[in-house]
Amino acid sequence: MSLLDSLKWRYAVKKMNGTKIPAQKLNTIIEATRLAPSGFGLTPYSIIVVEDEETRKKLLPAFYNQAQVVDGSAVIVFAAWNTISEKEIEQYMQEIAEERGVAVDTLKDFSGAINGSFKNKTPEQARVWADKQAYLALGFTLIAAAAEEIDATPMEGFKPDAVDEILGLAALGLHSAVAVTLGYRDAANDYLSGAKKVRRASEKLIIRK
Amino acid sequence: MSLLDSLKWRYAVKKMNGTKIPAQKLNTIIEATRLAPSGFGLTPYSIIVVEDEETRKKLLPAFYNQAQVVDGSAVIVFAAWNTISEKEIEQYMQEIAEERGVAVDTLKDFSGAINGSFKNKTPEQARVWADKQAYLALGFTLIAAAAEEIDATPMEGFKPDAVDEILGLAALGLHSAVAVTLGYRDAANDYLSGAKKVRRASEKLIIRK
Repeated sequence: MSLLDSLKWRYAVKKMNGTKIPAQKLNTIIEATRLAPSGFGLTPYSIIVVEDEETRKKLLPAFYNQAQVVDGSAVIVFAAWNTISEKEIEQYMQEIAEERGVAVDTLKDFSGAINGSFKNKTPEQARVWADKQAYLALGFTLIAAAAEEIDATPMEGFKPDAVDEILGLAALGLHSAVAVTLGYRDAANDYLSGAKKVRRASEKLIIRK
Repeated sequence: MSLLDSLKWRYAVKKMNGTKIPAQKLNTIIEATRLAPSGFGLTPYSIIVVEDEETRKKLLPAFYNQAQVVDGSAVIVFAAWNTISEKEIEQYMQEIAEERGVAVDTLKDFSGAINGSFKNKTPEQARVWADKQAYLALGFTLIAAAAEEIDATPMEGFKPDAVDEILGLAALGLHSAVAVTLGYRDAANDYLSGAKKVRRASEKLIIRK
């Protein structure tokens, strides 16, 4: 399938059939997500991949009992950083230095720019910024899933505090920003599977200059 | 190229070579972006595609003189809604009703759910929510560009008020949320083109449960 055909094929599946995703396909989707860019390359989130059935059962009420959580094969929670401080930025500089084989000192201008940017943000603004980066990465997950012909349901409707509690996110300095369930559609039992995809028409959505 | 190879090929190009993107490739990238999902399918943004050179020259200082704005072929600004009220939601219901050939009345539960969701949000929270949807769509733009072997530089570093002014966004009830420049890399003159891609290692980024 071409990319556009994949994107027309996908939709936010409401009913999944319980079939497990092959490990290789799940790994490809995760790897595509890992390759998503983020502002400054900071990647201010962790990606929690929940396949364990017991954990997904616990998550179900926190997701207002949306059945995909248990009828899918994996729930991915994008868990964004609660704070962005010099500590996290310093750690990132270490990662770049190691990866590129350069001294941390050579990255002073870059770390200064990042620190400067976050000194201009309130803690709430930094948190919102981290959440936005997670949404960009979610876009990568959705396309990679479609390319692998795996269904995906992006999910914003959950109780973040309950999800954080079940996954132990607070202790990691993280909070649940957005989620997606991966699995296979149960088309016969999904009221949405036959519905025409509605997207705003190009002439209304796109403004050319 | 496979999707993963495309994602490894892409990077945030700092220097572009001025070559124009063929219309068909640009249209494919825009169409992929149009197919991005959003919460409730509301698509709380417009996509401003700026190819006009004069307008891009005007935008340059608002983007802190990042040369891609003029050396690229198109700047896409995701312009998110300033407010989400019953009016926008009612209009969306009209669009669905027309597209699916059903009466608007049949969508009452759905519109009620959306209205309920936004009554629980402050205007600032609704605005942030709209911005997040734009970031998800930006993820679609980036992958579609890579699949077409078009370079793309996601850009958060701009003066939003200046961009809004130049593009006349306030009169449309919109504000600039995030942007991306599309074009072709000038690899010989881009200090980043030879740099190893740094992404957090899987064992640090991904938590399996």
